[in-house]
Amino acid sequence: MHDRPTPFLLVDADVLEANVTAMSVFARERDLALRPHAKTHKSPSVAALQSAAGATGLTVATVGEAEIFVDAGVEDVFLAYPIWVDAAKGARLRALSARARLTLGIDSVEGARALAAQLRGARVLVEVDSGQHRSGIDPTAAGDLADAATHAGLDVGGVFTFPGHSYAPGAQAEVAAQEAAALRTAAASLSAHGIEPTVVSGGSTPSVRATDSGVLTEIRPGVYVFGDAQQWELATTTPDRIALTCLATVVSHSGGNVVLDSGSKALGADRSGWASGHGRLLDHPDARVPSLSEHHAVVSWNSAAPLPELGSRLRVVPNHVCTAVNLADELVVVRRGGVVDVWPVAARGANT
Amino acid sequence: MHDRPTPFLLVDADVLEANVTAMSVFARERDLALRPHAKTHKSPSVAALQSAAGATGLTVATVGEAEIFVDAGVEDVFLAYPIWVDAAKGARLRALSARARLTLGIDSVEGARALAAQLRGARVLVEVDSGQHRSGIDPTAAGDLADAATHAGLDVGGVFTFPGHSYAPGAQAEVAAQEAAALRTAAASLSAHGIEPTVVSGGSTPSVRATDSGVLTEIRPGVYVFGDAQQWELATTTPDRIALTCLATVVSHSGGNVVLDSGSKALGADRSGWASGHGRLLDHPDARVPSLSEHHAVVSWNSAAPLPELGSRLRVVPNHVCTAVNLADELVVVRRGGVVDVWPVAARGANT
Repeated sequence: MHDRPTPFLLVDADVLEANVTAMSVFARERDLALRPHAKTHKSPSVAALQSAAGATGLTVATVGEAEIFVDAGVEDVFLAYPIWVDAAKGARLRALSARARLTLGIDSVEGARALAAQLRGARVLVEVDSGQHRSGIDPTAAGDLADAATHAGLDVGGVFTFPGHSYAPGAQAEVAAQEAAALRTAAASLSAHGIEPTVVSGGSTPSVRATDSGVLTEIRPGVYVFGDAQQWELATTTPDRIALTCLATVVSHSGGNVVLDSGSKALGADRSGWASGHGRLLDHPDARVPSLSEHHAVVSWNSAAPLPELGSRLRVVPNHVCTAVNLADELVVVRRGGVVDVWPVAARGANT
Repeated sequence: MHDRPTPFLLVDADVLEANVTAMSVFARERDLALRPHAKTHKSPSVAALQSAAGATGLTVATVGEAEIFVDAGVEDVFLAYPIWVDAAKGARLRALSARARLTLGIDSVEGARALAAQLRGARVLVEVDSGQHRSGIDPTAAGDLADAATHAGLDVGGVFTFPGHSYAPGAQAEVAAQEAAALRTAAASLSAHGIEPTVVSGGSTPSVRATDSGVLTEIRPGVYVFGDAQQWELATTTPDRIALTCLATVVSHSGGNVVLDSGSKALGADRSGWASGHGRLLDHPDARVPSLSEHHAVVSWNSAAPLPELGSRLRVVPNHVCTAVNLADELVVVRRGGVVDVWPVAARGANT
């Protein structure tokens, strides 16, 4: 590890396994199916841990991710995205559905018909907007769309949402309540059309602990496996539960700062308005990262302790771990400080 | 192109070639050496165009990038970064310097000594801070560092800076003046120590047209080859000169918006405080991209014209083209609408 050139991503196997177990226990105790989102780790090795801990299947965002995980032996995949299915995507989906149990998201009649034209009888969930205002229809319209999808020849299994507005300080309980309300409305709307939902799916890492298990049947958190600086600053995790960091080298003391070689091409450039900076230092909680360029992270040390020496190595916690992982070709796995494995980020860049 | 699954990066060869030519003409007319930064394109094919148009050599940010471009036949590379040279980096740099003319940046005595211990006689430029406050020393201290580097056994060729604070509305002329002032001071500081600088290097795409060619001998712009939404919004380029876009599919009309499949894993998440959003639509200048997640770009259409149909394809201009390119494995090259080539992004992820 000490010879490996920086920056690179380091995964603490003990912390990862504890995170995987904790979420599985949480889901089991509340009788919720756990279908983790694989866009976070993009790694069959992590998926195998999740499966061994009792995950019902995986969630993915793209057909390309689905292909990687089905190739790796995953048998049940939910594509939680309103994919536009043209002939090329249709051929890939038919190949996938011959090898795994596939479920897809829909949020429009046109999208449902395009899918049905390529994959008749496909199992789908209707996506509803629970307040993030990204994709998904109004929950009161879910039954109409389910009806149209059924008539187009699809098999409607239920409803889903992503409560992504949970990524804001203090918002988690309120957002989980909005998620439950939207899904309850959507499920009732399906029932009113004679379509009984068997899956009512939601769940984001920040809001998942506030999930209403009286409404939801399934949760799809992703980030929980690794944690990141966003979760740390939202207080939805603690530093000791952060499993992934970027090991970086101090390359400059320009301006009395610590300048690290972990720039946006290693950490990702995600920065919410409420974030304190461009990531955090795991072992130096007072330090902040006010500016980031492609190969420089400028760190305000904020401590009376001397600056770490040039050439020394520090662990940086990315703001958003999903996009940091997507920049790396591999994850260096350590246990009690020693490298025990290197996992390929098999689905890196699988955007289509 | 119409069958290729989205999102993917599209390069208009005619526009690219015009941009490469225009910058070469600009540099030649002012007697400035042009050493483009290859971190933007990470592509030997683009480097070959730059070289054919008269570039003196390439600039790179990492040893890994240098290796890719030297493998591709580039003979003169400046590593514009204060690399911390340990034994492993030293071995790689020795291998490189046997195959190409290599110059490195330094901004500390410790860094200079670490480099000299691994690559005695290495050619270096002293990095100075011209106002971005990232890396680089105070220009008045350049002579002292050059002196220490010479005594450590390095060959000091001059000074350089990156005026990255030119990425702000209206700042370009003032930043170019600061760049020239810092480099003039630094060059004089070397001279006062009996070290005559032969290279005085600066230049960023936004500020390059205001370069003081009475002070600088070399410019190192990168983004100019493709352009991006940042340059468009800074008015340092125009839409007709943007050579790279991300082709994206309309997947949802949720909330009356246009939702595209080009998320932050395709476009990058870079967003300056002054940017209007997360990129722009090349053919729809009124549209804005207020929110971006990993696989969704939410577009406010801002037009009386009807929303583009689900399944239709639009050209999205990333905010920061360097980080968008670093997410892609290949660039699809078109000329007058037809695909003429596919270039690998050979140095993607070459962060070390």
